[in-house]
Amino acid sequence: MTNADLGRAQALITSIPDYPEPGVNFRDISPLLADGPAFTAVTEALVAPFVGRFDFVGGLEARGFLFAGAIAAMTGAGILPIRKAGKLPKPAAAVSYSLEYGTATIEAPDVLHPGDRVLLVDDILATGGTLTAAQALVTELGAEVVGSAVVLELTDLVGRAHTGDVHTVFTA
Amino acid sequence: MTNADLGRAQALITSIPDYPEPGVNFRDISPLLADGPAFTAVTEALVAPFVGRFDFVGGLEARGFLFAGAIAAMTGAGILPIRKAGKLPKPAAAVSYSLEYGTATIEAPDVLHPGDRVLLVDDILATGGTLTAAQALVTELGAEVVGSAVVLELTDLVGRAHTGDVHTVFTA
Repeated sequence: MTNADLGRAQALITSIPDYPEPGVNFRDISPLLADGPAFTAVTEALVAPFVGRFDFVGGLEARGFLFAGAIAAMTGAGILPIRKAGKLPKPAAAVSYSLEYGTATIEAPDVLHPGDRVLLVDDILATGGTLTAAQALVTELGAEVVGSAVVLELTDLVGRAHTGDVHTVFTA
Repeated sequence: MTNADLGRAQALITSIPDYPEPGVNFRDISPLLADGPAFTAVTEALVAPFVGRFDFVGGLEARGFLFAGAIAAMTGAGILPIRKAGKLPKPAAAVSYSLEYGTATIEAPDVLHPGDRVLLVDDILATGGTLTAAQALVTELGAEVVGSAVVLELTDLVGRAHTGDVHTVFTA
């Protein structure tokens, strides 16, 4: 990783005004994902504070899976997919949480053992609802959340008021 | 990668009878994902025939994202996320295909240039509908599909009658 790659990576996250609805400024990481060196630099920065301190990388469906897969390849950790409800045949646990309209549920498979150390990763921290639920899900499974890491934190939405400390590569 | 890891990896793909409906034998890769060395061995075997021959790894949402992220980290390729309809703010192309009941649509972001070489990856090849649509999607974007690779091919479903040649790590 070089700082040049990381600086360039931030510029590859673009904004799309009024999507998916008026007043929302959507952050699109597609150009970042498309750039191999930038993706690698960001993923290395995402995992850096936690190397050697986790057994599983918990990726939040769906974009979190891209970073979780990369971190598994880089570190040798196992993957805990944190999935939307109804995708897993035998979920070991489920946690529901509130959205702006209605509720959502996430689930995890039965692969953790008590004391396993899990690093949670996702692309963007907005209101923090999903990440907070993922932390509760891992705890409910008897494992330990050693950290939560996101590529981009949208600080105006104050998600970390819910999630607690989150390692962020970029803020906006 | 060792052959021991790869042999052990196959045993980590379990079967769940009569899920999601009677008569269907669901293949669960969760235990394989949870095992770091097995996941790495499988991903290395998945990409092996194509190393040096692609610019982008196209992962099929959602489980294909885990392998696409790992391959990007291993090879330095960019990632093309092949997404379910409605997830991308500005899809560059969309392809619809038939399911047993109804149709589905996949989309890709606007990140490819003419002549870019794309390796498509997914976890399981069943009837081949999604993978065949992904091949058409990449072609529609003016790029080249240099190969398609899956972890597990369910040969009874004859998916490759639709997809053409697919590199498979395991068959069942």
